[in-house]
Amino acid sequence: MQKQKLLINGERLKKELERFAEFGKTENNGVTRLALSEEDRRARDYFRSCCEELGMSVKVDDMGCMYATLEGTENKPPILIGSHLDSVKKGGRFDGVLGVVAGLEVVRTLVENNIKPKIPITVVNFTNEEGARFEPSMMASGVLAGKFDKSVMLKKKDASGTTFEEALKAIGYAGEEENRLKEATALIEMHIEQGPILEAEGLSIGVVECVVGMACYEIEVTGESDHAGTTPMHMRKDALFAANNLINEIRKRLGSLDKELVYTIGRVNVYPSIHTVIPNKVVFTLEARHKDMEIVNTVKDFIQGLPNLGVNEGCEVKTTKLWERDTVWFKPELCDLVEQSAQSLGYSHRRMVSGAGHDAQFIASLVPSVMLFVPSINGKSHCEEELTTWEDCEKGVNVVLDTVLSLLSK
Amino acid sequence: MQKQKLLINGERLKKELERFAEFGKTENNGVTRLALSEEDRRARDYFRSCCEELGMSVKVDDMGCMYATLEGTENKPPILIGSHLDSVKKGGRFDGVLGVVAGLEVVRTLVENNIKPKIPITVVNFTNEEGARFEPSMMASGVLAGKFDKSVMLKKKDASGTTFEEALKAIGYAGEEENRLKEATALIEMHIEQGPILEAEGLSIGVVECVVGMACYEIEVTGESDHAGTTPMHMRKDALFAANNLINEIRKRLGSLDKELVYTIGRVNVYPSIHTVIPNKVVFTLEARHKDMEIVNTVKDFIQGLPNLGVNEGCEVKTTKLWERDTVWFKPELCDLVEQSAQSLGYSHRRMVSGAGHDAQFIASLVPSVMLFVPSINGKSHCEEELTTWEDCEKGVNVVLDTVLSLLSK
Repeated sequence: MQKQKLLINGERLKKELERFAEFGKTENNGVTRLALSEEDRRARDYFRSCCEELGMSVKVDDMGCMYATLEGTENKPPILIGSHLDSVKKGGRFDGVLGVVAGLEVVRTLVENNIKPKIPITVVNFTNEEGARFEPSMMASGVLAGKFDKSVMLKKKDASGTTFEEALKAIGYAGEEENRLKEATALIEMHIEQGPILEAEGLSIGVVECVVGMACYEIEVTGESDHAGTTPMHMRKDALFAANNLINEIRKRLGSLDKELVYTIGRVNVYPSIHTVIPNKVVFTLEARHKDMEIVNTVKDFIQGLPNLGVNEGCEVKTTKLWERDTVWFKPELCDLVEQSAQSLGYSHRRMVSGAGHDAQFIASLVPSVMLFVPSINGKSHCEEELTTWEDCEKGVNVVLDTVLSLLSK
Repeated sequence: MQKQKLLINGERLKKELERFAEFGKTENNGVTRLALSEEDRRARDYFRSCCEELGMSVKVDDMGCMYATLEGTENKPPILIGSHLDSVKKGGRFDGVLGVVAGLEVVRTLVENNIKPKIPITVVNFTNEEGARFEPSMMASGVLAGKFDKSVMLKKKDASGTTFEEALKAIGYAGEEENRLKEATALIEMHIEQGPILEAEGLSIGVVECVVGMACYEIEVTGESDHAGTTPMHMRKDALFAANNLINEIRKRLGSLDKELVYTIGRVNVYPSIHTVIPNKVVFTLEARHKDMEIVNTVKDFIQGLPNLGVNEGCEVKTTKLWERDTVWFKPELCDLVEQSAQSLGYSHRRMVSGAGHDAQFIASLVPSVMLFVPSINGKSHCEEELTTWEDCEKGVNVVLDTVLSLLSK
């Protein structure tokens, strides 16, 4: 079957993104649309009405995930396009919703061109990707992939004590388990990069090969609190100085391991944190991410060896692994297809990895999956300044459409 | 006049210290006797009754300081012995009260030996040395010395909104301004060391030559918060890494300046302190203390130059001086007298500095002053574990008595 040449309607895409940005709009042009909130409900209802207008049938599963399907002429597993409609508090107008609206725009383009796809096209909204109201993030895709236990997730509470299950019922999106995503031809998740690479390199499309593996540790340094004025330097057990030594060693070793390795000491607490008292405790997290799990494992070994580096200044050093995840590789054939689409459309592009987590990383264990990124201005996301140009949004959705057309032509 | 040979009663001293430890006793054998609290009032009332029993006249000044005077046979400015009766929350049984009880025991020894001193002996209790309930510390001695403004101090509030003035009146210790300490032959303040030096060197008596000068700065490092997973290392402005570099430079420079210099990075706050977010701000204090103000000034110059060391990792570095104080030297002749007393009593001793602040540092601007230290086990103070052996307490008070006898014999 000959592959068709089509382009989406960029103006319509922009209007639809602006329409969705109304649901939970913040003062500074951002969005607060926490999972299963009233704002989420209105966005879902609107999404449903858009899909039904296009002749799609909408199903909801027991985790509240929405599947809007344009029938195919053949009885084949659908091509999924989607992401999530929820946001963090004071988040942006693109994270998540862009991948859902991309699916909507692809279907609109097919419908207005009277194309009846041989494979069904399903636009999907995964519930609670952010985990901002109910932890953990990627909750529903995690349940679908068997990573999280549904009964545990239903009992998760938000800050006000409302359970996920109660909130799901309250907004009318507690559906049937039988509606869950099962087999599919492919999942295409388009997302903003949430990092600065594409913009820095002047590129429009990132073909995402994997979500990188990571390990996150907590390091606790225990010294002794003494009077800042009366304790000679050589008689101190200063937990801050020991932590500082450890950070030096961490930077020295991890900084020279591989240039694609990212590592962050993000959460840091110093006790008692009084200017006249020598710190007796420092607790900090160290997380590191890389696509090559051998490198992640090297980092883990190094972290576990931190107490024995001989830089403890008389303090005790303890490391605790908080969590880790293996690298999730997307389907190489789908990556190739996305890359070919970007190439044939004349868009600048590169292969890259995702440092952040996404629903596709869980769904990849169920169905062949791929992600593509569009640039984030200044690398910002999860904030009101989050921005992707309309032009890049349009290019990204054109790549999604072209990839779908490739799959349909096979 | 021939100097007399006398020793105090160690058993009586111990009992009196144990008696005072009842006022505000904590579960773990510490003391909570905040300035002008009910516990403080009871300790003051008891102190007054002890003094009156000994035939001393007790006066109270407008800051609540108590002066209990044993008349002299000649009309000369008194010899002052004293310290403070207040404590921090969950403080120890020795800090402050030891210096007041020392005075009481000296007078008791004179009285029981029927010695009528030619110079009056005044035992003094300075109000609110700790500043734990009403800031600042050394409040009353600071007012006496003209360092603090009385009208401002009277309006200082505790956590519940009660002013210093109200609390002073409530416990019945708002006295007359005319009763304030004016001229005196000497002030002798005996205190626990609050540091580990005497114990580490196996010595009983520290002859304190000065309260060291100090400078305290706040250093603010501002970078940029980005996503820990998606931001390549070379595109970060990590405020924690910059702070870490600065701490390295601080340790390198201050660590090699002079072995008696003490410096502390005590208060440290990292923002936003989320494990998946690169820190965009670190604020920390750096204080340094040394008896030689030239060294303190060298430290100040170095701190002010921190932003220009070229280790900022793209972050902005700002330094703000929080406060400073000059070294206060005690009267050399009095230091010699204290040292001779320790020597003649056969007690091990050394000259040393005080890294902590004390009332004597303010009073030194009014009258010839000196301090002596007795050892703090493990260097601990301002905690329930605070401990000085009864033997060392006794030795210290014997040195005070002998120094008084030296002054009386002149």
